[in-house]
Amino acid sequence: MEIKVVHQILEWNEDVSDKIKSELKVKKVCLVNIMGSPGAGKTSLITTLIKGLSDKFRIGVIEGDIQGQIDAEKMKLLGVPVVQLNTDGACHIEAMSIENILPEFELDKLDVIFVENIGNLVCPAEFNIGENMRIAILSIPEGDDKVEKYPLMFQTTDMLVLNKYDMIKYFDFDEQRVIKNAKDINPDISVFKISNKTSEGVLEFIDCLSDRITETIN
Amino acid sequence: MEIKVVHQILEWNEDVSDKIKSELKVKKVCLVNIMGSPGAGKTSLITTLIKGLSDKFRIGVIEGDIQGQIDAEKMKLLGVPVVQLNTDGACHIEAMSIENILPEFELDKLDVIFVENIGNLVCPAEFNIGENMRIAILSIPEGDDKVEKYPLMFQTTDMLVLNKYDMIKYFDFDEQRVIKNAKDINPDISVFKISNKTSEGVLEFIDCLSDRITETIN
Repeated sequence: MEIKVVHQILEWNEDVSDKIKSELKVKKVCLVNIMGSPGAGKTSLITTLIKGLSDKFRIGVIEGDIQGQIDAEKMKLLGVPVVQLNTDGACHIEAMSIENILPEFELDKLDVIFVENIGNLVCPAEFNIGENMRIAILSIPEGDDKVEKYPLMFQTTDMLVLNKYDMIKYFDFDEQRVIKNAKDINPDISVFKISNKTSEGVLEFIDCLSDRITETIN
Repeated sequence: MEIKVVHQILEWNEDVSDKIKSELKVKKVCLVNIMGSPGAGKTSLITTLIKGLSDKFRIGVIEGDIQGQIDAEKMKLLGVPVVQLNTDGACHIEAMSIENILPEFELDKLDVIFVENIGNLVCPAEFNIGENMRIAILSIPEGDDKVEKYPLMFQTTDMLVLNKYDMIKYFDFDEQRVIKNAKDINPDISVFKISNKTSEGVLEFIDCLSDRITETIN
């Protein structure tokens, strides 16, 4: 009789993540995992992306929160399919939750799903959720030491968005320090400076993301 | 033979937390657990507290970080005993770590220990660390929906510090929403509006904290 091996949660998570990735590849859907601190601007960025990308792609959203559905309601107003994922206290999203949620979408009618992860610079970075791409948001008011303090987040992301960039004049924020530290641990990282409020940098970011989504689903 | 009962980690944590509390009561040391998002201003607040309280109290600091010791070095410059606690990836501090660290201090020569928890609005709130008091920091740029999204943090804290208050003119931040939501789930919470940059509100906060520390250690 074979011995049953129970995986550690991280390994199990990895298996489910791979399964999701394969399924979405067949369906030609790109999954984007969007992470950052509480208040970094994840919801605003997704709102901006929906507005900027919906002429090119059919978009869905998975809105992760400990509890409540404040942000999901904002997304719904934009006319995209959105599913609220409440982690009930957990500080990150696991692949198992994404696997449970995917049947709620008509995948044949989607090109991209944005996942808003829980506001947290630590644990979400440890859990792959079947994503093709990660976007980490760091907002200027959070300070320029975050890459050193929370390295895994910045080491594992594909794109780094420096958000609330219009605020840089009011804060001591050394952007070169952030970019250097990020590139030291993640040489392929793409860095964007944007403001959702003034729209600066938004078009450039959307163009680049659009190209990457197109690459992924074709 | 007695059956050995292994507690769940949260229960075990609670036992150790109670033990620390008893030990510190005997030593007349007040432990203050300071929590908030990455970049909310925990380090700056502790720096301000050291400057504002060191004529009254003998202060020590436990500086929690995933890795590195950027903040501990800042504290050391202020001439207080500081111990760096690196969680090596963990997103919160547990009581067991505090228990291990306390022997590094000469407790007979201290009145208060400030613990800077990991930047995270979720998990740190779940783990008591033997503290007499919790301070949660929410900075204005993070937004006014954080109490609804991360309720446990604001439900379990004694004091809520709205930090970077000088920035309120640049952000859509409805402070009444935050205060109402916090008081709904935590009627005894004390709310302070401060700016470490301009020093507004700092004296009032320090006075109140000073009274509470005095009550605790006498």
